[in-house]
Amino acid sequence: MAKTARKYFCGDEWTVVEREFSPEFSKVAESVFSLGNEYMGGRGNLEEETAAPTLCGNYLNGIYEYFPDKSPSAYRGISDKTHFMVNAANYWRLKISAMGQTFDMARSKTLDYERSLSLKNGRLNRCVTWVLDDLHIKMQFCRFLDMEKHNRAYQRVEMIPDKDCELTLSAEMDFCGTYLTKPSRWRQREITDGGIVCDTETSGQSAAVFMDATVDGMHAQEIVKSDRCLKHIFRIKAQAHKKLIFTRLVSVKADKTGGDPAGYAKRELQLQIEEGYEAAAVRNEANWAEFWDKSDIRIEGDGENQQGIRFCIFQLRQTYHGADPMDNIGAKGLTGEAYGGQAFWDTESFCLPYYLFNDPAAAKNLLMYRYRTLPQAKLRARELDCEGACFPIATVNGYESCGLWQHASLQMQPSTAVAFAIFHYVNVTGDTAFLYQEGVEMLAEICRYLASRGQWSPDGSYFGYYCVMGPDEFQMMVNHNCYTNYMAKKTFAYTMSVIEASQNKEKLLARLHLTQEELWDWKRCAEHMLILYDEKTKLFEQHDGFFRLPHVEVKDIPAEEFPLYRYWSYDRIYRNDMIKQPDVLMFMFLYSGDFTLEEKRANYEYYEPRCIHESSLSPSVHSILAAEIGKEDEALKFFGFASRLDLDDYNRNTAEGLHTTSIAAAWMNIVYGFGGLRSDGKKLILNPTIPAIWKSYTFKLKYRGSVIEVTVKKGEATIAVTGGEIEAVVCGEEVLLAGTREFEIEKGQGKRSDEI
Amino acid sequence: MAKTARKYFCGDEWTVVEREFSPEFSKVAESVFSLGNEYMGGRGNLEEETAAPTLCGNYLNGIYEYFPDKSPSAYRGISDKTHFMVNAANYWRLKISAMGQTFDMARSKTLDYERSLSLKNGRLNRCVTWVLDDLHIKMQFCRFLDMEKHNRAYQRVEMIPDKDCELTLSAEMDFCGTYLTKPSRWRQREITDGGIVCDTETSGQSAAVFMDATVDGMHAQEIVKSDRCLKHIFRIKAQAHKKLIFTRLVSVKADKTGGDPAGYAKRELQLQIEEGYEAAAVRNEANWAEFWDKSDIRIEGDGENQQGIRFCIFQLRQTYHGADPMDNIGAKGLTGEAYGGQAFWDTESFCLPYYLFNDPAAAKNLLMYRYRTLPQAKLRARELDCEGACFPIATVNGYESCGLWQHASLQMQPSTAVAFAIFHYVNVTGDTAFLYQEGVEMLAEICRYLASRGQWSPDGSYFGYYCVMGPDEFQMMVNHNCYTNYMAKKTFAYTMSVIEASQNKEKLLARLHLTQEELWDWKRCAEHMLILYDEKTKLFEQHDGFFRLPHVEVKDIPAEEFPLYRYWSYDRIYRNDMIKQPDVLMFMFLYSGDFTLEEKRANYEYYEPRCIHESSLSPSVHSILAAEIGKEDEALKFFGFASRLDLDDYNRNTAEGLHTTSIAAAWMNIVYGFGGLRSDGKKLILNPTIPAIWKSYTFKLKYRGSVIEVTVKKGEATIAVTGGEIEAVVCGEEVLLAGTREFEIEKGQGKRSDEI
Repeated sequence: MAKTARKYFCGDEWTVVEREFSPEFSKVAESVFSLGNEYMGGRGNLEEETAAPTLCGNYLNGIYEYFPDKSPSAYRGISDKTHFMVNAANYWRLKISAMGQTFDMARSKTLDYERSLSLKNGRLNRCVTWVLDDLHIKMQFCRFLDMEKHNRAYQRVEMIPDKDCELTLSAEMDFCGTYLTKPSRWRQREITDGGIVCDTETSGQSAAVFMDATVDGMHAQEIVKSDRCLKHIFRIKAQAHKKLIFTRLVSVKADKTGGDPAGYAKRELQLQIEEGYEAAAVRNEANWAEFWDKSDIRIEGDGENQQGIRFCIFQLRQTYHGADPMDNIGAKGLTGEAYGGQAFWDTESFCLPYYLFNDPAAAKNLLMYRYRTLPQAKLRARELDCEGACFPIATVNGYESCGLWQHASLQMQPSTAVAFAIFHYVNVTGDTAFLYQEGVEMLAEICRYLASRGQWSPDGSYFGYYCVMGPDEFQMMVNHNCYTNYMAKKTFAYTMSVIEASQNKEKLLARLHLTQEELWDWKRCAEHMLILYDEKTKLFEQHDGFFRLPHVEVKDIPAEEFPLYRYWSYDRIYRNDMIKQPDVLMFMFLYSGDFTLEEKRANYEYYEPRCIHESSLSPSVHSILAAEIGKEDEALKFFGFASRLDLDDYNRNTAEGLHTTSIAAAWMNIVYGFGGLRSDGKKLILNPTIPAIWKSYTFKLKYRGSVIEVTVKKGEATIAVTGGEIEAVVCGEEVLLAGTREFEIEKGQGKRSDEI
Repeated sequence: MAKTARKYFCGDEWTVVEREFSPEFSKVAESVFSLGNEYMGGRGNLEEETAAPTLCGNYLNGIYEYFPDKSPSAYRGISDKTHFMVNAANYWRLKISAMGQTFDMARSKTLDYERSLSLKNGRLNRCVTWVLDDLHIKMQFCRFLDMEKHNRAYQRVEMIPDKDCELTLSAEMDFCGTYLTKPSRWRQREITDGGIVCDTETSGQSAAVFMDATVDGMHAQEIVKSDRCLKHIFRIKAQAHKKLIFTRLVSVKADKTGGDPAGYAKRELQLQIEEGYEAAAVRNEANWAEFWDKSDIRIEGDGENQQGIRFCIFQLRQTYHGADPMDNIGAKGLTGEAYGGQAFWDTESFCLPYYLFNDPAAAKNLLMYRYRTLPQAKLRARELDCEGACFPIATVNGYESCGLWQHASLQMQPSTAVAFAIFHYVNVTGDTAFLYQEGVEMLAEICRYLASRGQWSPDGSYFGYYCVMGPDEFQMMVNHNCYTNYMAKKTFAYTMSVIEASQNKEKLLARLHLTQEELWDWKRCAEHMLILYDEKTKLFEQHDGFFRLPHVEVKDIPAEEFPLYRYWSYDRIYRNDMIKQPDVLMFMFLYSGDFTLEEKRANYEYYEPRCIHESSLSPSVHSILAAEIGKEDEALKFFGFASRLDLDDYNRNTAEGLHTTSIAAAWMNIVYGFGGLRSDGKKLILNPTIPAIWKSYTFKLKYRGSVIEVTVKKGEATIAVTGGEIEAVVCGEEVLLAGTREFEIEKGQGKRSDEI
């Protein structure tokens, strides 16, 4: 299965550019040109109403509806009430009319088109000249979201006609957008000349959107209000060669738990008017500059990947930077409605490392999101006849929202991922205050769940998990999935070590309502956890019986049968040794320090040929391990599309939204893969290599108050530390990093700390 | 888990009687008092509109709607278009009014109530006296369906007031009934004074219902028509002590494939009027008498089971007797909407034996139903990426209608049950014409499916089925389920033997488009089929790994946790060695002759304690095997509620409809269990025992043109053959049965033919 690029966008290392408008790519471009500031975000829809294919979407983080029409499940523990992020207010709509025609990229005659997204300052720009017989109107659209004052959005359109003419502008705002194919369910509470306040139908939430629209400082001549829709209409006598400037300031207030957002939004709009568009644009650009200074990855000698990785980092920040502790990272961020805006275990497993080393406060907020939704996770455990807390497979509000029981009831990785994330966060940041407050509480509840969900073999000789689905979703309802058992064993062990190391164990146990018997039980579970491992081959068996499954030669599956779920019957996918994404290799990556290079090599060589990488999260993990075991060509091959997954539409579904969590994995791919970072041990490990085609690359890590800048060139790595010194293992050597130091790097070495 | 009787009905061995009207039991009574003649049927709803709890349902066999509103499945092979039997015309409704009040059992003051169902003549009777102040109206309701002329229904109500009074009768008929909770979707095509013609919304089917209603031979004074509803209204000046007779003749015509049913229904009604109510009643009673003469089971010394088994036989005949080769047997027959009127593998596995030995033509029709739906089964195999034909888990029209992929995609027993049924039918009837015409074609297509669905182990040493669910639905997605592998092996072997025995093999292969390579392939599959069997313990392992599953002590599960699917989370049920219904024991029953008594005993003793019998089909199979291995007490214990499952509402859900296929198993329980019949070998085996509490029992078997009457008393069995002589093995002795002969029977002997 060779994924291939579908080249469309160009630009440079700081800009993504569309040179011609193509209806065929219009939905892909909407996704790629998405803007977001975590609080809100939306697709890069054209300002005008268009005849081109479009998925018009603007979202408010954490605003959702329930599916109230789903009939109750006949079976206990199967979610019968799911929820999904809803399309909210569209405040970018601008209809421009002249000479009886209305502008539309898909129908109007145009010249000199270019649309570009600046990764440097977060502005989406469009230049185009509209040709109407002998009248030409040159237009420049620009919009951006405020990265600091998250309620604010900005839009400006400059228009220069080459003849005197009459122009009509309709600056519109509405809550009428569909949710994929279903009609909007917002209910209007209030509409005024300035804005709209609406309530969701089922979630008890509300949102207010207010706007100030002007043309050259003048307000609209006419205001039209209808149900959930507001129009400010300007009728302008435009003069030849004189620039008209349309400016719209928008303030948005979402109330996630009900309330009256109107007052807040109005006050915010007033402040916005006082600051003005230009000042805000300058301030926002500075905000981005400060960000890039800390979080950029620079690649010399590979313009495509340079643009790609910046796009990834840019979009990741747009989706999430820890602005609100009740936000999380949807699989598609705020760029589309696929996956219902829901967060998965991707957050802890693939996104968290980026935040750990770029924005530890945001990383903590991601953990706090899980802490705040601990009551929902406890409830979910009860629904599953378990104790403790079972974190959901998919959620916006903390309740399980995955209606497919085979995922919601069988996949335990959301819970073990939270436990791993707590360990990882504390290991990197040393934040023991969090560990002994919220962290240990979550750990204890996860252990309770793990102890109650697992079962003993009939002779009582070993413990493990029956009827589970591991990260590899092509093996459903298996026993002793190695990932599940291993992660559970580690979770028990870590939790017990945290409790043992407590300064006042008795008090802690009392606070957690834990008994010594429970601890002993966890100890027994951990000690007797069945880990299927063959000493001779060094292979972990993915689950009990995996090695005896019929074999499918993955490389012989014709390309036209992908994606498999569309071309193979559902059950056919499950009954062989083909895997969808790393499972054994995944825990060998997460707990990297637990395994020898020889074990990693053996398992990589066994499992990689069986993997079809149908999950977009798969190639990065393989690339990281390939780099570690010295398979540099494979590392590069798997990195191939990581950074440009969406820019080049490798999966042919970018139209539905960006693969936000996958693009987080692209950052890991560079930093953990080529950079050789490992952060699961007592000391940071850096073991850099450099892809043959790159001249150099540089990344920065925030670490315990210091900043580590790693620059890798052929044969050498330069590590510059700003701040306090750092104990680390670099290129196999235990060092105390301080100031700037150079290291020689060898090809395909793969040394690890335990082999020193 | 002790199922307990909920005694409500009384009566005698030919009659089921309700002595008092109880709203608490009203829906149970509706189910028990169901009438049917295969062509149509319905629940024993009261004639009047009632305030009592009711599930008003009247059905036409094979008339259904699609669920057109289900969104298409994202996964290949998962049914996204299911169908379900619809509530059709209610033609029994009669509203009786006097003194400004309308009669209703649930509200009116009444005396001398009794409702009774005559198993002898199929009439549902109700006597009641309606008390209105000082007016008493004695009423006698009666209705029945024609068992010979299946389009006809009859209703009569006799009324005697004790004072002169004015009565209003409204004889109504409508297509407005709900489908469980959903509104009727019938569309009216035509309504006249005589009847209504309606079309289904989605299936292209139609139905016409016409009626002739009279009071003392006079037609209605007024006719009211509204959408899908017709009322004939009688205003009567009734005289004290003079009997009024209301009579309604109804003719029903269902068009399963579209057409104009009105003409047929009108002509039929005319014939019905010509014959008259009384003559029809006499003719219908004779029809029932002839039936009972052939198919009755008589039990001396156990009135409860006598009534119970007659009720079972009565309801089985009402549901199906082979009137139409496109009919089949829904899980609830025509007595309720649960299971959507769909037929399951129950038909071949649990119902067919009754028809084989009572009505071979009906048995053949059941097989012809599968033959007629072979194209749908082929299509289903394609959807599952397989070849040949995959018969559906649940269907009315032959298309898979089970929306739960875990059943529809993983359970292969519908297909192997069809193969077994062909073998069984031919073995009992010797109908080689069917075998070499339709039978072998189905067998070949089933083998193709089995060959393409199965897989070879990675080393190519054995063949089997991965990711399947056997009859035990508590073990989902397992490998090498022993039932599945065994049944497939037998299907291959039987099909190849049939082809080899053909008089013109080449011609047959050409007709079936079969190659010699395919046959070799089937041979290899059959020979290398993995059957998990332990020589030492004689145990078959239900699937690969079953013996290593965590153990649940079934007898320790509290009674209040049943039914488990309601109290245990869905996934919890699956991860232990508890089973829902016989799986290994099932194939040991079907292919009884393949196994020694020792093997049966070992497997019974291992699996029975692990079975919770959540399927109502489970106890009978256990009872039959218990009888065989000499566990007479257990045999009786499991028989306990087989014959009175619905009469005593053991499962507490008779309100939803009868367990029609389970009551078929009650017949098997007596004839195969106590009677010791085995019909899977070259000769019939009879090895009777008698439960301690019975004085004697008698059953009849039609067999190859002869009738075998078996009467069993303590210590002896009398076998009387009418017709040609029959080779058999009785009480372990090879005999040529002719005339009447007595056999001595021993306690707990369990002899089998292969041990002679």
